[in-house]
Amino acid sequence: MTFPDSTPDQVNTALNEAHIAFLSYKNLSGKQKAKFLRAIAYEIEALEQNLIQVAMRETNLPEARIINERGRTTGHCRMFADLVEEGSCVDARIDTAQPNRSPLPKPDLRKMSVPIGAIAVFGAANFPLAYSTAGGDTASALAAGCPVIVKAHPAHAETSELVAQAIKKAIEKTGMPTTVFQHLHGSNFEVGKALVNHPFTKGVGFTGSLAGGKALYDIAQQRAEPIPVFAEMSSINPVILLPKTLEQQAVKSAEMLAASITQGVGQFCTNPGLIIAIEGKGLTDFSQSLSAKISSTPAGIMLHQGIADNYLKRLTQSVSQKGISIEGQSTSAVEKNQGLPTVASVTAIEFLKNPLLSEEVFGPFSLIVKCKDFTELHTVVNHLHGQLTISIFGSEAEIALHSALLNIITEKAGRLIINGVPTGVEVCSSMNHGGPYPATTDSRFTAVGTDAIKRFVRPVSYQNFPASLLPEELKDGNPLRIWRLVNNEWSKS
Amino acid sequence: MTFPDSTPDQVNTALNEAHIAFLSYKNLSGKQKAKFLRAIAYEIEALEQNLIQVAMRETNLPEARIINERGRTTGHCRMFADLVEEGSCVDARIDTAQPNRSPLPKPDLRKMSVPIGAIAVFGAANFPLAYSTAGGDTASALAAGCPVIVKAHPAHAETSELVAQAIKKAIEKTGMPTTVFQHLHGSNFEVGKALVNHPFTKGVGFTGSLAGGKALYDIAQQRAEPIPVFAEMSSINPVILLPKTLEQQAVKSAEMLAASITQGVGQFCTNPGLIIAIEGKGLTDFSQSLSAKISSTPAGIMLHQGIADNYLKRLTQSVSQKGISIEGQSTSAVEKNQGLPTVASVTAIEFLKNPLLSEEVFGPFSLIVKCKDFTELHTVVNHLHGQLTISIFGSEAEIALHSALLNIITEKAGRLIINGVPTGVEVCSSMNHGGPYPATTDSRFTAVGTDAIKRFVRPVSYQNFPASLLPEELKDGNPLRIWRLVNNEWSKS
Repeated sequence: MTFPDSTPDQVNTALNEAHIAFLSYKNLSGKQKAKFLRAIAYEIEALEQNLIQVAMRETNLPEARIINERGRTTGHCRMFADLVEEGSCVDARIDTAQPNRSPLPKPDLRKMSVPIGAIAVFGAANFPLAYSTAGGDTASALAAGCPVIVKAHPAHAETSELVAQAIKKAIEKTGMPTTVFQHLHGSNFEVGKALVNHPFTKGVGFTGSLAGGKALYDIAQQRAEPIPVFAEMSSINPVILLPKTLEQQAVKSAEMLAASITQGVGQFCTNPGLIIAIEGKGLTDFSQSLSAKISSTPAGIMLHQGIADNYLKRLTQSVSQKGISIEGQSTSAVEKNQGLPTVASVTAIEFLKNPLLSEEVFGPFSLIVKCKDFTELHTVVNHLHGQLTISIFGSEAEIALHSALLNIITEKAGRLIINGVPTGVEVCSSMNHGGPYPATTDSRFTAVGTDAIKRFVRPVSYQNFPASLLPEELKDGNPLRIWRLVNNEWSKS
Repeated sequence: MTFPDSTPDQVNTALNEAHIAFLSYKNLSGKQKAKFLRAIAYEIEALEQNLIQVAMRETNLPEARIINERGRTTGHCRMFADLVEEGSCVDARIDTAQPNRSPLPKPDLRKMSVPIGAIAVFGAANFPLAYSTAGGDTASALAAGCPVIVKAHPAHAETSELVAQAIKKAIEKTGMPTTVFQHLHGSNFEVGKALVNHPFTKGVGFTGSLAGGKALYDIAQQRAEPIPVFAEMSSINPVILLPKTLEQQAVKSAEMLAASITQGVGQFCTNPGLIIAIEGKGLTDFSQSLSAKISSTPAGIMLHQGIADNYLKRLTQSVSQKGISIEGQSTSAVEKNQGLPTVASVTAIEFLKNPLLSEEVFGPFSLIVKCKDFTELHTVVNHLHGQLTISIFGSEAEIALHSALLNIITEKAGRLIINGVPTGVEVCSSMNHGGPYPATTDSRFTAVGTDAIKRFVRPVSYQNFPASLLPEELKDGNPLRIWRLVNNEWSKS
């Protein structure tokens, strides 16, 4: 099923309507927003097999994956419901007046976070549910008190329509402002551009390519009023294998990485696209074992033809660069819409010379960078762009010997992993799914976990407000029983 | 005394050195950074009369103001010292592993804030101490763990040199990395441009004009790796006078506002440059009283000739716009370097037609917008750009009648004030000194108060880290006794 692109008029109307919704929605209590978010989860579940079947058809993803992703989607709706119902996330601060302070009296000053306004969310190709219509961006923006306008990803527009209908049912059933959520279609860039350019759009959530994310970011920064863009774009999630440990666990490491590289046909932003190690017996054993695993992994159907075409193009380009050898490639017959698992290798010297090799190849591909020694390995690590994750495989003792490496990778990534693969993004308070550019456009915020709500709020101070005019969160006596910093002491009473 | 502009080579060397300092400075404990910040405060105080005299000579500010500003500067150094010594500001989160969770085990995941890297700070013309060399940007960046490169404001370069020497003494005495603070000069834009463009610059702090701040912002966004810019630029700090209350306290309101408009020759970013009220007896009385006060306020010497020239130019331009009447102007003789206190008025209709009237006139000027009724007043308020502050003068009962106004101004400003003037920025946890564009380039952060540190950090997650490799802040047993969110419960034990 295809849907006509939304017209410029429709985009304009949607934002004007979103702004009207905002002026009432932003004042709803945490309890009311929680009820809405839980209703969204319920209505998505009520779509039952219809949603599963449509999503499978549109994305080529297997049923188990879609069911899992649906669980994650309803899970984060309920997580944000719990968060705003509890309410401490407004980060309330109170400094009471000191009328007799000399030389000047101190006024009563209180502060809390408020929502920033209407948010444009772009559905992601690779997560038709969890990063799309009711994905983490939408759920966190609605939890923050912001209306949301979703542009459906054209590759799964029907799935997006179904979820949008579920959200609209939840709006009706919980009596939310009708236009607090709106759904648009756009297969060409103009719709997205108009969305980001509208004066009532106050923030943008995007998951996709570097080219797409950077284009939206540039538009947003060139507006009369620049707005924040949270684009999660490009990461090759380097994995550093320390040599002594590698000798002891070459096969085990290869198995873990082969599974991670090929999981979901490599279509995760956390796919390990770069492996950095020092030449020696450990690396030889590891490469052989990884190549064997990759060779025996069948090619899988990718999300849509455009992604498969792009993978083939980027893969061909990468492996034809100077100094690249293919170490292993799936031997299965490959259809036009499938992605062929492939591992290649290159020396550190060639890697450092060729910037193309630091770019993401979205699909089941990984590149092994073979270093002569630790000096070369350090140079390669220093050369890395910003990443969502960097992993180190090594024993506690061996990592401790190379603590300078830990010091450097902290500057390069949003999540550091020891002896684990980067795929698998836990949804919790301690998750940071973000990282220095070009992994994202703003390394100070996470797209996953409770803190994702912080992207869509800003602080406001209330000076000298009589009690009756203060928001509940800031009133004396703490009627909502939330954590607040009162005269520099945290308290819940 | 004049100082030669730093050369491109000097800028490049400074940033390379800053990056080297960063790799060790970022790992210092809160206690160590606190010692350093307190030493800065001590060394600034040790400059004694020399600093006071040089600053007075360079800025034309009176002794009492410089002494007060010095107190504020050493005060925020000590405030940030207390903050990082206590340590909870790293916002630590811990989610412990659940190895037996089904279908997938949950990894151990911990998160805290880390510094973003070297910060370029631009000294502000109007605060030679508190927003300059050891100002809030520098102190909060150093507290966060970021090296700082200050570009001295050319109008008070010698004051800046003195403070820089004090900071360098503090570096020596507390054994900090030598290049954790560096000081450059630049009277032309190229030095600032080179600073913002350097790959090792990871953030920018700026207080000044809209043109200057926006130019730096645009450079920062067009870099290969865009970086955050915290520019505090332009605010006219509207004051809304509600009619019933105004009738009862026209003279008192006029006295408060006259003092605020002319304080420090109007050279505060929180100067009340716009007064919005409804025509009637209250407004007539208020205007007469305000005009009388302004007429009898002598012209004061401005910070430097450039600011005085610019004030005269912008004042002349504003009062020559269609429909503008001068209500009151200081009758004192005026020297070339003085700013003449002036109040003008305009009808709402003319105000809404002319965008120039919404722009800041930096100096002792305010414009009264006369509205026919509440409908016009609402239109004017809706028309406002982003502001640092918006004030409402009105009784609790009268404000409650117009709660829709409160709802709108929350979207327009970073600090809302009831029955108070915007000048006077309290330094505390509840202060938000920031606001929607063009007041600042990022409404989600404050430039004043403890939360200013948040501008210079980003979160990092640590997955599966053995205890010995974790930062102290995230270790089991909470050795630093800081507030942490452990499995979704806040705890200090």
